[in-house]
Amino acid sequence: MKSFKFLSLFIIAILSFLLCNAEDGYDLWLRYVPIENAQLLSSYQSKLQSVAVTGNSSTCNVIKDEIAKGFSGLLKLDIEVSDTWDKQSILIGTSATSTEISQLNITNDLSNEGYVISTQEINNTKSIVIAAKTDVGTLYGTFHFLKLLQTNQSIDNLNIVENPKTTHRLLNHWDNLDRTVERGYAGFSIWDWHKLPDYIDPRYKDYARANASIGINGSVVSNVNSNALILTPQYLNKLNGLAKVFRPYGIKVYLTARFSAPIEIGGLKTADPLNREVQQWWQSKVDEIYSIIPDFGGFLVKANSEGQPGPQDYDRSHADGANMLAKAVGKYGGVIMWRAFVYSHEVPDDRAKQAYAEFKPLDDEFMDNVFVQTKNGAIDFQPREPFHPLFGALKKTPIMMEFQITQEYLGCATHLVYLAPLYKEVLDADTYAKGKGSTVSKVIDGSLYNHKYSGMAGVSNIGNDRNWTGHPFAQSNWYAFGRLAWNPELTSEKIADEWLRMTFTNNSTFIQTVKPLMLNSRESTVNYMTPLGLHHQMAWDHHWGPGPWVNIGRPDWTSKYYHRADSLGIGFDRSSTGSNATEQYFPEVRDRFNNVETCPEEFLLWFHHLPWDYKMKSGNSLWNELCEKYYQGAADVQQMQRDWDSIEALVDEEQYDHVKQLLAIQVNEAIWWRNSMLLYFQQYSKLPIPEKYEKPTKSLEYYQNLKFHFVPGI
Amino acid sequence: MKSFKFLSLFIIAILSFLLCNAEDGYDLWLRYVPIENAQLLSSYQSKLQSVAVTGNSSTCNVIKDEIAKGFSGLLKLDIEVSDTWDKQSILIGTSATSTEISQLNITNDLSNEGYVISTQEINNTKSIVIAAKTDVGTLYGTFHFLKLLQTNQSIDNLNIVENPKTTHRLLNHWDNLDRTVERGYAGFSIWDWHKLPDYIDPRYKDYARANASIGINGSVVSNVNSNALILTPQYLNKLNGLAKVFRPYGIKVYLTARFSAPIEIGGLKTADPLNREVQQWWQSKVDEIYSIIPDFGGFLVKANSEGQPGPQDYDRSHADGANMLAKAVGKYGGVIMWRAFVYSHEVPDDRAKQAYAEFKPLDDEFMDNVFVQTKNGAIDFQPREPFHPLFGALKKTPIMMEFQITQEYLGCATHLVYLAPLYKEVLDADTYAKGKGSTVSKVIDGSLYNHKYSGMAGVSNIGNDRNWTGHPFAQSNWYAFGRLAWNPELTSEKIADEWLRMTFTNNSTFIQTVKPLMLNSRESTVNYMTPLGLHHQMAWDHHWGPGPWVNIGRPDWTSKYYHRADSLGIGFDRSSTGSNATEQYFPEVRDRFNNVETCPEEFLLWFHHLPWDYKMKSGNSLWNELCEKYYQGAADVQQMQRDWDSIEALVDEEQYDHVKQLLAIQVNEAIWWRNSMLLYFQQYSKLPIPEKYEKPTKSLEYYQNLKFHFVPGI
Repeated sequence: MKSFKFLSLFIIAILSFLLCNAEDGYDLWLRYVPIENAQLLSSYQSKLQSVAVTGNSSTCNVIKDEIAKGFSGLLKLDIEVSDTWDKQSILIGTSATSTEISQLNITNDLSNEGYVISTQEINNTKSIVIAAKTDVGTLYGTFHFLKLLQTNQSIDNLNIVENPKTTHRLLNHWDNLDRTVERGYAGFSIWDWHKLPDYIDPRYKDYARANASIGINGSVVSNVNSNALILTPQYLNKLNGLAKVFRPYGIKVYLTARFSAPIEIGGLKTADPLNREVQQWWQSKVDEIYSIIPDFGGFLVKANSEGQPGPQDYDRSHADGANMLAKAVGKYGGVIMWRAFVYSHEVPDDRAKQAYAEFKPLDDEFMDNVFVQTKNGAIDFQPREPFHPLFGALKKTPIMMEFQITQEYLGCATHLVYLAPLYKEVLDADTYAKGKGSTVSKVIDGSLYNHKYSGMAGVSNIGNDRNWTGHPFAQSNWYAFGRLAWNPELTSEKIADEWLRMTFTNNSTFIQTVKPLMLNSRESTVNYMTPLGLHHQMAWDHHWGPGPWVNIGRPDWTSKYYHRADSLGIGFDRSSTGSNATEQYFPEVRDRFNNVETCPEEFLLWFHHLPWDYKMKSGNSLWNELCEKYYQGAADVQQMQRDWDSIEALVDEEQYDHVKQLLAIQVNEAIWWRNSMLLYFQQYSKLPIPEKYEKPTKSLEYYQNLKFHFVPGI
Repeated sequence: MKSFKFLSLFIIAILSFLLCNAEDGYDLWLRYVPIENAQLLSSYQSKLQSVAVTGNSSTCNVIKDEIAKGFSGLLKLDIEVSDTWDKQSILIGTSATSTEISQLNITNDLSNEGYVISTQEINNTKSIVIAAKTDVGTLYGTFHFLKLLQTNQSIDNLNIVENPKTTHRLLNHWDNLDRTVERGYAGFSIWDWHKLPDYIDPRYKDYARANASIGINGSVVSNVNSNALILTPQYLNKLNGLAKVFRPYGIKVYLTARFSAPIEIGGLKTADPLNREVQQWWQSKVDEIYSIIPDFGGFLVKANSEGQPGPQDYDRSHADGANMLAKAVGKYGGVIMWRAFVYSHEVPDDRAKQAYAEFKPLDDEFMDNVFVQTKNGAIDFQPREPFHPLFGALKKTPIMMEFQITQEYLGCATHLVYLAPLYKEVLDADTYAKGKGSTVSKVIDGSLYNHKYSGMAGVSNIGNDRNWTGHPFAQSNWYAFGRLAWNPELTSEKIADEWLRMTFTNNSTFIQTVKPLMLNSRESTVNYMTPLGLHHQMAWDHHWGPGPWVNIGRPDWTSKYYHRADSLGIGFDRSSTGSNATEQYFPEVRDRFNNVETCPEEFLLWFHHLPWDYKMKSGNSLWNELCEKYYQGAADVQQMQRDWDSIEALVDEEQYDHVKQLLAIQVNEAIWWRNSMLLYFQQYSKLPIPEKYEKPTKSLEYYQNLKFHFVPGI
């Protein structure tokens, strides 16, 4: 009888497993599957018999659910979560919710979002304590603890203290109200505005969970190319549906503010920020918003850029515009994120110089609750850019870093590109604003100039594709952004290691194979797209695929404007002999970029126009070096393909197959890039592609004549 | 030791179950969860120990996978599927693949897609035989057999013979190449054209599975408001990616043909169907398509309708246009589905009469492989319409029925409306074309006039929402369409019963509660939207919500054109004293509709304009009857809400909650409809809403001033 039960249960176990087997990636890095290492599993099981979560706020209930979900999935333990501590293996709470915790005095040095995970003796009982000043802090600590299990870490003698390095860690959704997503490559917007607020998609909660698990505490839900309708009562009511779901997870909602809204939905004749009526309109609009959503975060504004209205339409400054809004949200603790990505209608000598030129002089003029939100580089989210000269240049005004998580210029939907190395390259860059060691990180985290507010924004890569981000590995970029917003000092390697273990497996062969693949992927992409400082060579408008020949629209939207290739050579002279953009950097940096000898070769053609036979440090001519980079980039992707094939047995079949199919596309597109770029530049260099490389089989004309329709993301 | 294993396995069992517990509806009616009735389960298990699937075509492999999936899920049996019969409990195959089956002589009377499921003695062994003439027939039989288990039927002494009543059972996708879906309310198109054919979303296969399980054998993947790009090599190559996935499931791909394609992508000056060059262009285009997709199904064409180009642009007839295309696809066995939903630019006296007027005279002119595809009613997919007068009127030309599965005029995304009763009302209607019993079903299945081709098309309600159709119950309309296309004689009750058991549970309380809820839902919707023959009263353009006041655009696109309400009364006089649309029906039907005494009251205001005090059969005045219907409709939805609440414990929590939230929306919208319509008509009737009813709390102006943006589906 027992053996029959045993058998049938065995069958149940197997089959229930089979039934949930195919993984579609929906669980992201919060994949709570049983610990693979049996020994480790039983040791965890023996040490984690019970949990106490003190407090009963909605956030505490979220913690209880997460613990139950995590323990049943990871440890196969169906544990009871108690509200008060009675010698449980884990105690979670704040000084306010637990006398034991207040007596331990371990939360004193924490910021409001920080937490401690430490092994403590409480009345002679050893217990793991997850403590914070706020419930949200304990939620962050809970996710950290679960990560220890997911990544097979020791849970003995824990002594972890974590405080976020920034106050504002935001996703920017370029989502339109019709559910299209500008530069979105993972389907359409997850915000179903039509059914909000009456139908709450369970996905909204899972979105909040995922963000909270990496410390993201804000979401700008509307596109920077904004629609004033989002500010009408009908949509504010819908927004409140989202705010209610996000609140327990410590996530505030933000909106983009269309500067002309007072005209479009307010019925005013002007949007002049110094006009009393306009100021009053915004104030009462803001009062209305906070009456519906008391913890509304504030506004993100794209003004006087790419056709968006702004204060300059009324001969006012960006500061005038930002301060009008800052005043309105200030009394509620809201902030304004005013984008520095602006350029005038007149085509300038060098677009790279404009943001600095416009904002540097305004440094003293912004109110305290205004961020200037600056992209990592001065052009536009290229595979590689030198850090933006505004970092360090603004002293009084906090800069919000804007990274792009979605891969507008990095292969869109189908290229495996791990972006942490791109983010880190900028964060670790030294501005020399206050001498050596004045890294961009220190600018962003507010420590360099002691700013009250600090933050990082990531342009979301999330859509309604089942796995959230389209490419399974694009999830790692969402994850990496969140981790770096919390702590810019983390390494790309550490983040990749965490993400791989949580998302796929702790199998060492897998980690040893796929981690390097991830870490190298961005450099490979730079190589097959725009090596040696080349930039903005993507196809017109949709930016998918190569377009070095693009020569339509305003000059500074064309590829020729940026590569400047001619019979003499290639590159954009931004040195003192050219546009002198180098002048915008602090002297140490300026001189290094300005001098072709000291300019890092990865930025060579960004700052200098050089002859085709210019001798590179490798000994190659510039032309041959270009060829080498392009061929290397394409070859790297083929190696990624082989590496991925080799771990087939170690990951879920559906996940494996998804990545495999996309890598095949990436190989083709890398070769498409390589051949298009070299054949195009060859018209000017008149030099041969070195013998050792396979020649392009198609002609330049073939590539130039390729036409595509309905490319996603526009 | 054993007991420890026992325990841990027990935990695995429980937890693996927990992990897959929350159901998102993705599995549709192919939900293979363990049979709830333990006794029945073990009896199935004992009778179904082994299966033989003979043959090794790709379709046979699909059958093997489905059997394995079904048995492991439903019966918790991990069985081996053998290729040859050796006393297995089930034998699946054709005369060609199994000598045992050929010796049984049970497939002789089957059509190519038919199948037999019968208990047979083979060499003194009892076995369940699933046999057909073709592999696809056996696939259909396999799904039928699995359904027996899902719905807890006996599998003893089986003797089932099934032949589809129609040859063409198609879904029409109104999907655009940018992935928007015209009249789509379940997200966006599941066709990811950008990534096709290189990335094959697993969803394509699940789409094919679901359709094959209900006998659908064709998919028109592009919108009838067509884009010629779909006919270019780039897109045909992408289409082939879908065709390869669909083929093993017996599903052919079809396209919509934009009539002006020879000009737009062919570079010709004309698209005149009698022009030699145009004919040659289409022939070579068709040759190209079949060289890529040898089993391409054919074209669906919307011509000279709502601005679409067509043969009339060149003073040619619809037959000239259809025959040109029919000739091109004919040699490959392809068909043309030419839509009868046409109307001229001039506004007619009665739009309801146009399709008949244009197509009846052409009956002798179409080639054999042309369908005239006709909507169920003469207007446009209203909650209720009398059957289209073309049914039975065309004798030589087969009519393809076009039903709308997506709920353009039936609440769009959020109303629970089971459409089988709507479909059946039309299919069971008697045209009297060849005397009594000449039902629309007999026209559609080709039996009335002995047509070689017969078929039914359903305008798809499928999108990339996780559960395919947005509203969980909208899945039942996809299911019902497929079942009725296979056999128009099935009852709404039988289809609802099958679907509920397969999708939710066999629990008798659940079935007894929810089946009537489904069966009544369409009549309730008619009542709160457009009772007593009212029609086309929806809001302008997006058709979501009430708009009896709509009075913009061409007259026959306005609500006033259709309700004709005035101080004297309400209704569209289509009798012999009016537009005389009744004349288009055969005498028995004509006379019944024409005479206000014999006209069914559900069509009263469709055919007659009557005074507000007209005495209804109930004894009510027309005005009071209208009030009663509207209040009844809204009250019914509140009852649906109570009924759904009562079965909470019997269904998955996520599924339950999804429906519960949508029913709350439906209640509000039913009241919105009721109040808007009655307050509007009251302007003309000048009569009070009877005392017994709660008065509308909002004014007519309030409802008229409601504005909505970005309503899905346009």
